[in-house]
Amino acid sequence: MGEQNRLREFIKQILMEYARYKHSYGDIEVQTIFDTENDHYQLVNVGWNGYRRIYGCVLHVDIKNGKIWIQHDGTEEGVARVSTNQRLWPPIT
Amino acid sequence: MGEQNRLREFIKQILMEYARYKHSYGDIEVQTIFDTENDHYQLVNVGWNGYRRIYGCVLHVDIKNGKIWIQHDGTEEGVARVSTNQRLWPPIT
Repeated sequence: MGEQNRLREFIKQILMEYARYKHSYGDIEVQTIFDTENDHYQLVNVGWNGYRRIYGCVLHVDIKNGKIWIQHDGTEEGVARVSTNQRLWPPIT
Repeated sequence: MGEQNRLREFIKQILMEYARYKHSYGDIEVQTIFDTENDHYQLVNVGWNGYRRIYGCVLHVDIKNGKIWIQHDGTEEGVARVSTNQRLWPPIT
């Protein structure tokens, strides 16, 4: 269970890091959605740019059987590459 | 806090009801994502149809200041209409 919690904290940290970036236009909330019970982790854009609705999942990561599954990655550079390049991955004990 | 919990259970029930419907094609998981701490509730399709990736949020509902916010509704009939038509809304105490 310690390993599982380590993965959880690792994913949350990465998503919260992305959530710090704010949009330069419109009124857009960057939500982090953490379902730690079922191990689903998401980053979602919700808001408006003038009269235009903005809605979209940026990142969706799950933990399944102790492994990280990148279900959706809408980031420019790719979350897997960034976390490995920055030596974030594998998470350090 | 009782009212807030009642809203939470109400939203969860509706989303779980939708999640019972399975896709007639491909290998698609219908995920319910419940972040009860930040009050974000989602229904997401994740999977494959042959070699084609299937990913999309069907429903996203938040609770903000004791009110239900339908952030995204990709259901055919509209979740607000269905819940009111079926007299699910307002939730009965």
